Amino acid sequence: MQQYFSTKKENKILYLNNDDLNHIKNVMRMKENDKVIVVYKDKSYICKLNKDLLSCEIQEIFKEKEDNISFKAYIPLLNEDKMKFILMHGTELGITEFIVVSYQRCKYKLPKKDYEKKLIRWNKIVKEASEQSYRIYKPIVKGILELDKIQDGSNVKILCSLDKENVKHISEVLTTNNINDTISMSFGPEGGLTNEEEKYFETIGFIKTSLGSTILRTETVPLFIASIRKYLRKED
Amino acid sequence: MQQYFSTKKENKILYLNNDDLNHIKNVMRMKENDKVIVVYKDKSYICKLNKDLLSCEIQEIFKEKEDNISFKAYIPLLNEDKMKFILMHGTELGITEFIVVSYQRCKYKLPKKDYEKKLIRWNKIVKEASEQSYRIYKPIVKGILELDKIQDGSNVKILCSLDKENVKHISEVLTTNNINDTISMSFGPEGGLTNEEEKYFETIGFIKTSLGSTILRTETVPLFIASIRKYLRKED
Repeated sequence: MQQYFSTKKENKILYLNNDDLNHIKNVMRMKENDKVIVVYKDKSYICKLNKDLLSCEIQEIFKEKEDNISFKAYIPLLNEDKMKFILMHGTELGITEFIVVSYQRCKYKLPKKDYEKKLIRWNKIVKEASEQSYRIYKPIVKGILELDKIQDGSNVKILCSLDKENVKHISEVLTTNNINDTISMSFGPEGGLTNEEEKYFETIGFIKTSLGSTILRTETVPLFIASIRKYLRKED
Repeated sequence: MQQYFSTKKENKILYLNNDDLNHIKNVMRMKENDKVIVVYKDKSYICKLNKDLLSCEIQEIFKEKEDNISFKAYIPLLNEDKMKFILMHGTELGITEFIVVSYQRCKYKLPKKDYEKKLIRWNKIVKEASEQSYRIYKPIVKGILELDKIQDGSNVKILCSLDKENVKHISEVLTTNNINDTISMSFGPEGGLTNEEEKYFETIGFIKTSLGSTILRTETVPLFIASIRKYLRKED
């Protein structure tokens, strides 16, 4: 079943918007009485489409609750394919906030005038990924930040580092003891963060963390950590 | 540093092949004395390229050992992009064997005459992914199997299921107690495995397992499970 987000409810009727209508009619080719899942506020419902395809009637609750504990990823500005990869799969795996950062070793550059357009596109990717994985809470994509604008209030702050010394192993940093805390992670583009950048994160409380000796691609790192979190939280 | 695989060693000299030579010269544009990592048998070495660029001299050991406990993934036949995705990231995350299976709900079909060509291509993808992530052991890609040809001798056999009943949660199936065992996993294409297919896997000892209520895309499933394994094994 396809999921949509609604912002208007009247009794048992949920209203969709014109983008959804287009998707329902032209992509999904659905018709009156077909079933969809619709999120309204903090629940999702199985609904039956009305004739106008712009509204639907609630049949039953689909998902009553979903954890929404903050789980942030600071992601380096990467090319469109890699950004899409991280946003899509990161959303599936429970990341709640993506903050795009322009690091020194980011090969991909973007002129400031294109920031807004990109953010709109990235937020559309996470919206669609939320719908596909039946998430109630759409993650948010923010940025593009310069390093020195980052402040972070999470309980557990993971700085993925390629260093071999003065690092803790991820299995010490993320454990069943702190898995219900708010979590943030940061990691570099290809080539890693510079020493300076790692120092900055350490200054604001991030723990230098090793993910092991097998080198993971930049875009695999957030999915690895998000998978661990999902596992340790034993999410239904 | 770029990694290559060698099959010939004479004293401190490791020999590369013509494909590597082409990569070294034309892709990496390296020259005499540039450093590369070369795997020979069960170790990898930091080496200095000789003038011919077809051989190199061992400088020091890079990686002395790597776990090579069997970790199999039965993957549904998917389109090329998704196959590449799973093979590439699955290799990074430690899968040792990919067995491609043609399930009833696989939308992507491949005529038998193309099997061999595809297997060559897929094995090339895992070779390159092994090089990029500095793995000593190249995983192997096999198939394309029909369901009833599958027999499996692993200790832990995970059958990812969308069912809500009669399933164990992944956090019960994969634990620190069995993480050093041999592991196999199977999962369906979009829409899941059919009841019949799930039954077959159960007959040969697979445990019906839930990954939680958030729906993961087919291609995310093996990476999720491989991430958990990598984490629980506390791999250096």
